[in-house]
Amino acid sequence: MNELTISLKSSSKIPLYEQIYSYIKADIQNGRMGYREKLPSTRALSRYLEVSRSTVELAYEQLLSEGYIESEPYRGFFVAQTEELYRLKKEKTDVPVQEKARRKYRYDFSPNGVDLRSFPYNVWRKLSREILIDDRTELFRSGDPKGEHGFRNAISSYLHQARGVNCSPEQIIVGAGSDYILMLLSMILGGEYRIAFEDPVYKQAYRMANALSYKTVPVSLDKNGMKVSELEKSGADIAYVTPSHQYPTGIVMPINRRMELLRWAAKRENRYIVEDDYDSEYRYKGKPIPALQGYDAHEKVIYLGTFSKSIAPAIRLSYMVLPGPLLEKYEKKDHFVHSTVSKVDQLIVQRFIEEGYYERHLNKTRALYKSRHDVLIEELKGMSDILNISGEHAGVHLLLTFKNGMSEEELIKRAEKEDIRVYGLSDYRIQKSADERATILLGYANLTEEQIREAVKILNHCFRL
Amino acid sequence: MNELTISLKSSSKIPLYEQIYSYIKADIQNGRMGYREKLPSTRALSRYLEVSRSTVELAYEQLLSEGYIESEPYRGFFVAQTEELYRLKKEKTDVPVQEKARRKYRYDFSPNGVDLRSFPYNVWRKLSREILIDDRTELFRSGDPKGEHGFRNAISSYLHQARGVNCSPEQIIVGAGSDYILMLLSMILGGEYRIAFEDPVYKQAYRMANALSYKTVPVSLDKNGMKVSELEKSGADIAYVTPSHQYPTGIVMPINRRMELLRWAAKRENRYIVEDDYDSEYRYKGKPIPALQGYDAHEKVIYLGTFSKSIAPAIRLSYMVLPGPLLEKYEKKDHFVHSTVSKVDQLIVQRFIEEGYYERHLNKTRALYKSRHDVLIEELKGMSDILNISGEHAGVHLLLTFKNGMSEEELIKRAEKEDIRVYGLSDYRIQKSADERATILLGYANLTEEQIREAVKILNHCFRL
Repeated sequence: MNELTISLKSSSKIPLYEQIYSYIKADIQNGRMGYREKLPSTRALSRYLEVSRSTVELAYEQLLSEGYIESEPYRGFFVAQTEELYRLKKEKTDVPVQEKARRKYRYDFSPNGVDLRSFPYNVWRKLSREILIDDRTELFRSGDPKGEHGFRNAISSYLHQARGVNCSPEQIIVGAGSDYILMLLSMILGGEYRIAFEDPVYKQAYRMANALSYKTVPVSLDKNGMKVSELEKSGADIAYVTPSHQYPTGIVMPINRRMELLRWAAKRENRYIVEDDYDSEYRYKGKPIPALQGYDAHEKVIYLGTFSKSIAPAIRLSYMVLPGPLLEKYEKKDHFVHSTVSKVDQLIVQRFIEEGYYERHLNKTRALYKSRHDVLIEELKGMSDILNISGEHAGVHLLLTFKNGMSEEELIKRAEKEDIRVYGLSDYRIQKSADERATILLGYANLTEEQIREAVKILNHCFRL
Repeated sequence: MNELTISLKSSSKIPLYEQIYSYIKADIQNGRMGYREKLPSTRALSRYLEVSRSTVELAYEQLLSEGYIESEPYRGFFVAQTEELYRLKKEKTDVPVQEKARRKYRYDFSPNGVDLRSFPYNVWRKLSREILIDDRTELFRSGDPKGEHGFRNAISSYLHQARGVNCSPEQIIVGAGSDYILMLLSMILGGEYRIAFEDPVYKQAYRMANALSYKTVPVSLDKNGMKVSELEKSGADIAYVTPSHQYPTGIVMPINRRMELLRWAAKRENRYIVEDDYDSEYRYKGKPIPALQGYDAHEKVIYLGTFSKSIAPAIRLSYMVLPGPLLEKYEKKDHFVHSTVSKVDQLIVQRFIEEGYYERHLNKTRALYKSRHDVLIEELKGMSDILNISGEHAGVHLLLTFKNGMSEEELIKRAEKEDIRVYGLSDYRIQKSADERATILLGYANLTEEQIREAVKILNHCFRL
């Protein structure tokens, strides 16, 4: 008992029992008290420390629960076998700290931009406030794994009306972003699939498929999109396509090619088409191209949609529409997976759709992006001798193919010198080939009309030197 | 041109160009217009329909974009090859509609309950309102893949102080619920691992591992938790454990067993321990048991935590703390995966922690659950002749092992007849064995003290007949 050097601080915020516990634990850890050593009785220690017996009992109970001491009936408390305790010193590893300092440009033609100044903050705040008042406990209970039924209902109506998608709310699964949706889809699919990707490709999905350990294979495009003859030869089971607006080339897959693709899928039971309808909302000429899913008579199309592009990137809300056979698989074996989207967010977006805010927001941003698109096209006219434009009239970027002999690298470097960021098509290619014409992507969602005018003037100059 | 039977409704809400487009598209789809058939010129059709020429042009452009017609320079427009068009009639499959009607009980002793009446609605609403006013555009921009730095900082401080976890914010990855965290972890781990689970087991994690195609193996428990000797023999690379409060038995793994487990992991490079610290917040005697992670000197422990249990199930917010080698893997190959939690939710919970609301909420619910726990223990005293209690003093459920010869099935059925739901331990076993003693789980988080008193009185009666 002489061994125990405990000096209690009654003024401390730490309870007395915890102070006693810490002293004894430290003594055991650093070896000052050894295996089988007997601890003073609670009565003796409480008298010695001038604290109540229950205080000491509480300390001993904690040491018992954590396994530092053992109690033997009628004999008292003993130090447990802890001589093999790890030394608590950490072998410090250097954690790789990621480079976060991405260069900021004066003009950034990012093709992934979203104009956030037009985000309807007031509506969002109002809906959020109303929902938090409305519902109370129900709102914070665990929700439907697929997403709330009312929300899926709203999505289903929207998809039917705006995209020609044929589905019931039961086929829809809501998830926190498109990456998550692909993770869940890979759980549902299970097994081994070879996935064909368009080349050039929407990189995020391609990377996800690889990270999820799928075999992937690039299939090249002609002017109608993915070449189905090449797809057939590739040995792929799943074709990942963006038929309404190929990313990044902007190709709209015509009805014939769609039918060819659907026929390819119908040939084998385990073949599927993933239709990523990531930005169908933005089309500046005529009406939106209907989804491929609407023509699918053999339950082959997995349709993916998202609100992250059309509302805001930080809204982590995407969904998929499963064809019958995969829905059955999901219900059978993956239905236990909890939803990843909070009910509050689901309700906000549900009311955002149902009360017409979504349509108004789309109309507003469509008009905004169209103006920027038109200004960009107008300004680029002055460069028609050195480049051809493609992929215009839809989405939030277009492509410039150069005929002035400069390489993509050269073009990007020249823009960079002027503090302008432009994007090379080769970054989106899976298979690099030397004979491709230099092509630059210009996104306009994040730039004002004035900025677009200024930047193109500079580009027109620096691409000619 | 006689073939075209177009009757335009100028009073319709559908634009004229869209009506023309729809008529022609329908004629092509149902075969009334065949391949290579020439369409009327835009000039002729506009005169015939008495609409402006640009209206017809818009209709033709849409048909062109979707690939129903083709244009030939100087010759005009022709129907494209579409005779192989799929019939648009759907083969309707019956979508399996899930059974949702779960029986409601008068008293439900669910071990997964959370008291939502004590949820701090007003604080939540206040924080949510303040955050939506504060930040504007920044709030809706794409966030850090790991979660916002400020939030991870708050978690790191909390973990250090409350759980003895040793980590920097860089090691923390936030995700929308524990199921998602396991999906992401499986992406980071990659390759083939055999995962050992405690038997009886926390079923959700066990099911996730199986659904993620891992090989799983059950390892039985003694009074100190997972048997490391059996683990060694099992050939597992990863041990999934709940050391601070084994689910569902309530066993606290003593320091010796923890060290044994850490030594097991240190033996091979690819071995890891997953520490699921799902409900360490609730302990009614002494202080919380420190996390295993705090003793890990060889970067072997993957620590999992969640706010879904301690705040509310609908708050989809969990996190993991990665050891150095896995963090490196993540940074190298999975850092591109977008976060699944909205910034708004992250900021709410960050401020909830930083401004002391979380601690207060934990204290409040801990006191609440302790009262219910104490009432339950008190009421069960009258049944000490037919059962033994274990797993008490922590969590939100305890276990009753019966010595009156009744089987679990019998006990559950008898309770059911009285409209009381109790849970059998066999549901949590991976390997069933006939010689296990009948054991019932009683959760008390969702029942009032009054309800507990009433229900136990009924059980005491019906378990004796």
